[in-house]
Order: sequence, then C-alpha cells, then structure tokens
Amino acid sequence: MKLSKKNIDLRSSHVYDAIVVGGGAGGLSAGIYLQRYRLSSLIIEKGRGRSFWMQNVTNYLGLEPETPGRTLLQNGEKHYLELDGDFLRGYVEEVIDEGETFAIRVKVGKENSIYPILRCKYLIAASGIIDHLPQLSDMQNVYDYAGYNLHVCMICDGYEMADKQCGLFVATESAINTAFVLNWFTPYISVFTQGLFTVSDAMRQKLKDHGYPLFEQPLKRFVGENHLMSGVELADGTVVPLETGLVAMGSRYHSDYLKGLDLEWKGNNLPTGEMCRTSHPRIFALGDLKEGINQVSIAVADGTLAATAIWRDIRRASPPRIWEDNLQQYASLS
Amino acid sequence: MKLSKKNIDLRSSHVYDAIVVGGGAGGLSAGIYLQRYRLSSLIIEKGRGRSFWMQNVTNYLGLEPETPGRTLLQNGEKHYLELDGDFLRGYVEEVIDEGETFAIRVKVGKENSIYPILRCKYLIAASGIIDHLPQLSDMQNVYDYAGYNLHVCMICDGYEMADKQCGLFVATESAINTAFVLNWFTPYISVFTQGLFTVSDAMRQKLKDHGYPLFEQPLKRFVGENHLMSGVELADGTVVPLETGLVAMGSRYHSDYLKGLDLEWKGNNLPTGEMCRTSHPRIFALGDLKEGINQVSIAVADGTLAATAIWRDIRRASPPRIWEDNLQQYASLS
Repeated sequence: MKLSKKNIDLRSSHVYDAIVVGGGAGGLSAGIYLQRYRLSSLIIEKGRGRSFWMQNVTNYLGLEPETPGRTLLQNGEKHYLELDGDFLRGYVEEVIDEGETFAIRVKVGKENSIYPILRCKYLIAASGIIDHLPQLSDMQNVYDYAGYNLHVCMICDGYEMADKQCGLFVATESAINTAFVLNWFTPYISVFTQGLFTVSDAMRQKLKDHGYPLFEQPLKRFVGENHLMSGVELADGTVVPLETGLVAMGSRYHSDYLKGLDLEWKGNNLPTGEMCRTSHPRIFALGDLKEGINQVSIAVADGTLAATAIWRDIRRASPPRIWEDNLQQYASLS
Repeated sequence: MKLSKKNIDLRSSHVYDAIVVGGGAGGLSAGIYLQRYRLSSLIIEKGRGRSFWMQNVTNYLGLEPETPGRTLLQNGEKHYLELDGDFLRGYVEEVIDEGETFAIRVKVGKENSIYPILRCKYLIAASGIIDHLPQLSDMQNVYDYAGYNLHVCMICDGYEMADKQCGLFVATESAINTAFVLNWFTPYISVFTQGLFTVSDAMRQKLKDHGYPLFEQPLKRFVGENHLMSGVELADGTVVPLETGLVAMGSRYHSDYLKGLDLEWKGNNLPTGEMCRTSHPRIFALGDLKEGINQVSIAVADGTLAATAIWRDIRRASPPRIWEDNLQQYASLS
C-alpha cells in the first residue's frame, strides 16, 4: 500500500524482509519479484531519479521506443502496488546495521517533515546516480534540452546522435576522451570545457589530429526552441551551431546513507557478486550503484537477481511447510 | 527488413557484424542494441519458443502483468525492424567457424525448403530451451493447460500457485526435490511420477514426512475446461483434484547447431563471462542457454551485454572517424 505521513505508524513495529532504497527501474523490478516471492517489502523513493528525466526509453524490450521514463516508473509502481508491496515517498537519511536487522531513518515530507524509523532484514540499494549538468545562471535553460537532444548517455542515445554536429560538454580533461568513442557515431564533434580546466598540449594535439574543435570559454546559454537545442552561446557571445549534444561531466551517486555501513567500495561503485550481493551479506546493490554499464535493462535484471538471492536465503532458513491434514491419513495413501 | 525465400539472395554476399540465433526476449534485446550501435545484424527465429507459450508475463517491469509472451515478442520484432535490423524465419542447422567469420546454414520454409548460407563476424546464441511436458496420447489435452494454470517455472508462477492444491509432474527422482522448494508457496503438493521411474524408499519417506502424496501411475489426461486444469485422471480412472500444477520434467536445449564448434560446455549450458561471452571469443550465449536463472529480465539484460561487448570489439578495431573538413582550417580555430 502507499505509505505516507498519515499511515506510516502502521509499520512502526513491522520488520520487512527487504527494504529497497530507490524506486527506479532496478528497485521496482526487485520489489515486483520480492512480492511475487511472497516476501514483505517496502520501496522508498525520493522522486525525480535518472529514469524520471528520460524523454524516451529507446532500447528496452517490450516498450514502445517513444515511451518516457516516467511512464515506465508509473507502470512499475502500479504493478508493485497491485502485488501489495509498500511504497513510500521519502528520503533515506541513515541506515544502522543492528546485526539481524537494519534500522532505516527516512525523511518524509518536505515541510513539517517526520523521521520514522523502518526496519528490515535485507537492504537493497537501488538509489542510482544523477548526471552532473552544465551549471548556468539560468538552469531552466539546461533542463529545457537535457534528456531531449542534449543527452547524458552515449549507449542509450548514440544512435540519435549519428552523423550530427554534436557538442561534447566536459568538466575534466579525461572526459575529453569520450570524443574518441563518440566518434563511432559521429565525427562532427565540438568539445566544450566550459572554462572549467586547462587542456594539456597532448590532448590539444589529439583533438586537432581528429579535426574536433575545442571551445574553452564558459557557456552563456543553450540556443534552441521546443526542447530542440540548436547550438550554444559562449561567454563572448559567439554562437556555435549544434544539432545534438552529449554531457559527460560525471554523476552524483545517491549513496550517502550507505557510508556508515561496513561495505567494500570501488570508487563510487559497490562491487557485487553474480546475484548483486555486496561485500555485506544482507546488502545488495543494483543498476548504476554497482559496477558495469548503466542501462535500464541491466537494472531490471539486477532486481530479479537480488530478490531471488534474498528469497533463497530466507526460504532456506525457514521450516518446511507440511501438508498437516495428510500426515494422519498418509498410511492409507501409500 | 523481413527476409524470406523471396529476398534472401540480397544477403548472399553480405557479412553481418552479428547473427542472433533466436528471436526470444534475449535475441530481440540483443538485436535492438546491435542496431542502435549501428552494427549490421540478423535475427533468425524458428518460431514458437518458450516465451511464445507464456500466457502472462507477470514479472517483467514495464509490461502490464497480463501481457502474453506473444505480445512481448511482437513488440520486440517491430522495434527491431524499425531500427532496420534483418529478421528471418528459419531454422539454423549448422554453424561453421571460418576463422574471421561464421557460415550459418539455415533451413527456410517447411515445404520446398531452401538452405541459404549466411555469414557474420559474431554469433549470438539466444535459441533457448523448451520444457518437456507430460507425453499423453492426446497432446492437445496438455497444450490446453500448459502455460495457463499448469506452469513450467516456479520463479515465474509460484505466486499464482500460492496455497493451492498443486500437482508436481516429474520424470526423475531428483526432480521430486522441487517439492521442497515449491512448498515455500504451497504445502498442498501431490507428486506424479507418471510411471516413468521407481521412487527410492528414502524419498518415499521424505514425502510421507511432509504429507505430500505420491501417485505413480501413468496419466490418462488432465481434467478441466477453458484452459483451467482442475485435476488429473490416472491410468486406472482415479481422478485427483488439483487447482494448479507445476511441470518439472527438464528441458530440451536448442543448441544442436553449436555442437560442431570449439566451445566449453557445462552440462547443457554455456559458461559465460560477465558480458555473456562464451569460451569462444566471437560467440555469446544469452538467457536460458547460459548458466543461471531462466527469466525474461535476465535474457533482456544479456542481450544488452552481448551487443555492447561486440560493439566494443568492433569499434576498437576500427579506424577513428575524423572530421575531415576541419583538418585544413583547424589552425585558425586554435
């Protein structure tokens, strides 16, 4: 059921089999499987995650290619609620490992917030990442195009960028190397450092050898209309015409709540075994938080794997269900 | 485009980047990604695979839970064709490893068959499995219920069997152990050996201790109407009432065409690395052919992984695309 400030007290003494932090593709898939395994689960979703911003999920089997990420999330939430899963809008602030259980402190409500503690045996970290975007004085100008023809994922949208004049927006020199993968899709690449760092002579030469112009001024604004970016205006007023863009400025990982736990990290990612189990036997990591490529399809499969591993653990620790009525009369059957 | 007897000659001298054997969930996902990576691909689908028979795909994020497998396959084929992938109805009879390429002999057409040879650099084995079903004199009687309330996958449909009187149909003693997992969902389990083997005393005792009756006669027929199985009639005319059933009789692997290749096997499965690459560097295995759990979501992610690995291989071996027009005038830009 949908939980909120009003009814969260119903769950104050309940211990869930699993709490899933994040109601994106991975978290919803995990929730659907957990409920179908007849386990007790709660998804805590803060809202507006990475898939929420996708205007088109173009590469996920079964969806019309023009389906927005929001629709995928809505369908998944409905599916999960029909299976009697619990769903709460809130922000997970802290997780404390109590040995057999986790205690999870959630901020619920932007105003007059309450901070309930919820408990579970297993924790699924499916809170994902969000892309860093160019920081302009008018951020609405960025949001007007991000997720439309200003992309953040080359694997997802390289196809849409094919043979187009593409701006590559970076914040570090190493991210300029994205150009030498992006050129599989298009060679018409202009690199924008946004004035954020100095480019080495070696990289300068490499770009020159490929014919990819380098623009080192801060950006003033994106140019375009109706969510179609058609270029970028630099600080000095120069307008560079573009047909598409790729932002490769790294990501923020939604994982602060995990920082107090005894977990092995690899940079910002959580290394996992084949069932998405982290170094902690009762914590699983899905999708963008674990290592590997960031794709909806991968996150969905991760949800399947984590839920299945949790089911196996709990099932194996449970006494077998006997057909009681038959025990007495079984002699006559055999 | 759709290929057939009529137009297959168009591709007689073409070398695909990848040919995908099997147009189920894994193969279609691989095809969609391959095309979006701007590679050249062909899916060869024999028809009527495992997902074709699913009456409801109940656990795949994004689909309405009542969506039949056929709809998922139709949507996927449409999606793939819109991306200009090639799709051929046919049966892959043999694959020959020519070193740089594979030569694939396909039987096309049930009558007046032709046997074109198609070539590719990479092979994706996504041909899956099909479940063994009880063999009755009237197989239509089995098909009337299989995929409805006579299930073949506990992970998929355990939820639907919860607390119901469930028949477990097995062909080997070891498969009887399925009962001791199925009892997570329901304890009302009756085991049917169909007269196919003799049950050990130890297993007999174990079933008795759980109260699960054992029926050792051959089956005459399933009883029911409108695709709802309500019991089974044994050879001696006894009718055992049931509310649902699980067939656990193993599977046939669609992998004969791989048998002549230099590949490492683990039983009927192909061991794979994290990107679904088999022991052969140019052959990938997806979904039910590889090890692990057999789920639509897993197969879909596998398609993503295999296509991505193939793209990386081909991309890294290709010369970089230069923005030629800029090379001349680049001096003036910098």
